[in-house]
Amino acid sequence: MFSDFDTRMMERALALAALGRFTTAPNPRVGCVITQGEHIVGEGFHQRAGEAHAEVFALRAAAEKASGATAYVTLEPCSHFGRTPPCANALIDAGVKRVVCAMVDPNPEVAGRGINRMRDAGIEVDVGLKQTDAETLNAPFIKFMTTGMPYVQLKLASTLDGRTALANGDSKWITGAEARADVQVYRAMSGAILSTSQTVIDDNPSLNVRWAQLPEDIQQAYPETSLRQPIRVILDRQSRVKPDAHLFSLKGEVIMVHDSANDNVLTEQTSVTHANSNEAGFDLHDVMLKLAAQGINHVWVEAGANLAGALLKAGLVDELIVYQAPKVIGADGRPLLALSGLESMSDVPEFILDDVTRVGNDIRMTLRKQ
Amino acid sequence: MFSDFDTRMMERALALAALGRFTTAPNPRVGCVITQGEHIVGEGFHQRAGEAHAEVFALRAAAEKASGATAYVTLEPCSHFGRTPPCANALIDAGVKRVVCAMVDPNPEVAGRGINRMRDAGIEVDVGLKQTDAETLNAPFIKFMTTGMPYVQLKLASTLDGRTALANGDSKWITGAEARADVQVYRAMSGAILSTSQTVIDDNPSLNVRWAQLPEDIQQAYPETSLRQPIRVILDRQSRVKPDAHLFSLKGEVIMVHDSANDNVLTEQTSVTHANSNEAGFDLHDVMLKLAAQGINHVWVEAGANLAGALLKAGLVDELIVYQAPKVIGADGRPLLALSGLESMSDVPEFILDDVTRVGNDIRMTLRKQ
Repeated sequence: MFSDFDTRMMERALALAALGRFTTAPNPRVGCVITQGEHIVGEGFHQRAGEAHAEVFALRAAAEKASGATAYVTLEPCSHFGRTPPCANALIDAGVKRVVCAMVDPNPEVAGRGINRMRDAGIEVDVGLKQTDAETLNAPFIKFMTTGMPYVQLKLASTLDGRTALANGDSKWITGAEARADVQVYRAMSGAILSTSQTVIDDNPSLNVRWAQLPEDIQQAYPETSLRQPIRVILDRQSRVKPDAHLFSLKGEVIMVHDSANDNVLTEQTSVTHANSNEAGFDLHDVMLKLAAQGINHVWVEAGANLAGALLKAGLVDELIVYQAPKVIGADGRPLLALSGLESMSDVPEFILDDVTRVGNDIRMTLRKQ
Repeated sequence: MFSDFDTRMMERALALAALGRFTTAPNPRVGCVITQGEHIVGEGFHQRAGEAHAEVFALRAAAEKASGATAYVTLEPCSHFGRTPPCANALIDAGVKRVVCAMVDPNPEVAGRGINRMRDAGIEVDVGLKQTDAETLNAPFIKFMTTGMPYVQLKLASTLDGRTALANGDSKWITGAEARADVQVYRAMSGAILSTSQTVIDDNPSLNVRWAQLPEDIQQAYPETSLRQPIRVILDRQSRVKPDAHLFSLKGEVIMVHDSANDNVLTEQTSVTHANSNEAGFDLHDVMLKLAAQGINHVWVEAGANLAGALLKAGLVDELIVYQAPKVIGADGRPLLALSGLESMSDVPEFILDDVTRVGNDIRMTLRKQ
């Protein structure tokens, strides 16, 4: 069904899609390549919610050469009138002869409609080329569409014996500058950065994307003028965070999550969301549902041992990003994760190691849910 | 000074030397290649202490073709009469024209003598080709010759948050079968396996090399008939280990390290060594000196959090071999290392990460002293 040429073109479409990884949230990353014979006549990718879809850019570039062409799209073309007209119709109207999709629309209620509409119009549609790569690129979008819950990435950073600070609290710095720059890249790709009042009170962090700290190759592909700041979400059940916290002085939205007892709005750029809780803390499943209700499909978590452990225990973590420094602190040091009540090795949360790589003097492991 | 051909021949000599890595201890691993023009006319490697050196095997193979030949040796040929006659003389007598050595003899008192003797006899001697690789291959021998202390490798195995067991002690298994087989390879390369009475009492381990568990490629290069069991060394200050411990029922030497108060010999294959101690435990520097005095230059440590932490604190660890499973246990779990009294991040033991690789579902990090 798929030729080597098809594969190369879909790889190109995926590379184009990835160019949108810092800007499309909460929309999916989509790329499109249009070919006539062995020649590319149009390309495009989705850049930002509310702006044109990948297919539209590619069809514009191809112009009359789209007639009789093949279109490679990393996601099934949309079939509904949203902020833009349906791409399936645009491909039909342009006279495209064949459409190759990496995957169908993950929303089970619309999946296949775009494909069917194109087939009904006489277009040959082939689906499933490089599907795994396409799914990886849009894991947050897919999880949200299929479960209604956001995709959660938990960042952890420690010594190789799992310590985040000395007994006296000293922790500057466990990991090196390269690892900290790498964290900026993950922040930049996320829809929201989740942390806690405790972290805000202890560290007074900015929790934003600092463009100047992004690696140079990313700065080149992602100019400062396009910078999108993820929404910062702070779990603050008891409203302990004060309006003079550093994060409020920086550009970008902040959502304070409180229990239902209070709705103290701290600054103009800050909104309040309520989630269920008890004395032990928030119902984290409910927190995620409340974020999902605001269209957040991708959460990057930077917090202490308590929230990290609680998210793991609740089974809410889709992906772990673990930075480890080639240092040891010993059992007196502060632990990476609070996770209590494990009685048997079969209860121990276990992950699939997708990748391990060096980042400066440290390593980064990427693991996903089993 | 060195041609591409020279480099290829030294790489070959290093590969030959590595064939001895399971058997030569405490002798160095040495390989030798003899060439005439662009042809290899003889090869050899050192197999076992008391048997012929690499050069002797290669000269035998080359026979009369050694005359006018070039010899590539991974270590400066010896100049003294030991259990075998000096190799420098053998190369001279065979009429070799040029000798390329990867490194000089690390023993500062004899370094250069073999080279000088050959130069005096009119041989062209070039030194330093692939020296770093040669030094890595013989790190234990070099450390012992230059400092009088054994080379210490510390094995650690934990979850990615640095835990070795649940709070209740359950730990079967943290790492997978591939990681455990990998440990067998490290044991097989060592001169001695060091552990503690506490580990013997808690786990009743064998602490030997189980040939059947070595990876298949190593079994092929290292037949069971050649199996050498490293000496097992148990720190047992208070003579708590009983003669029915499993390790005594297995082939191979055992050294029990006691304080000077007792010299209870447990079994026929067991000897007793005394080392300095106080109530807190052994003086680990003295333990290493006592092992060195018995010709042990390479110690592989498998023990609990206390000995591991104490060795790190004493600065006695040359290399860390860390296995990590893609699991999390949390702060209730048993810690990997006991290391107390660190007051500042600048006191934290820090290592150079040489390698990180997957072993089955786990990762293995190799780190060395800064």
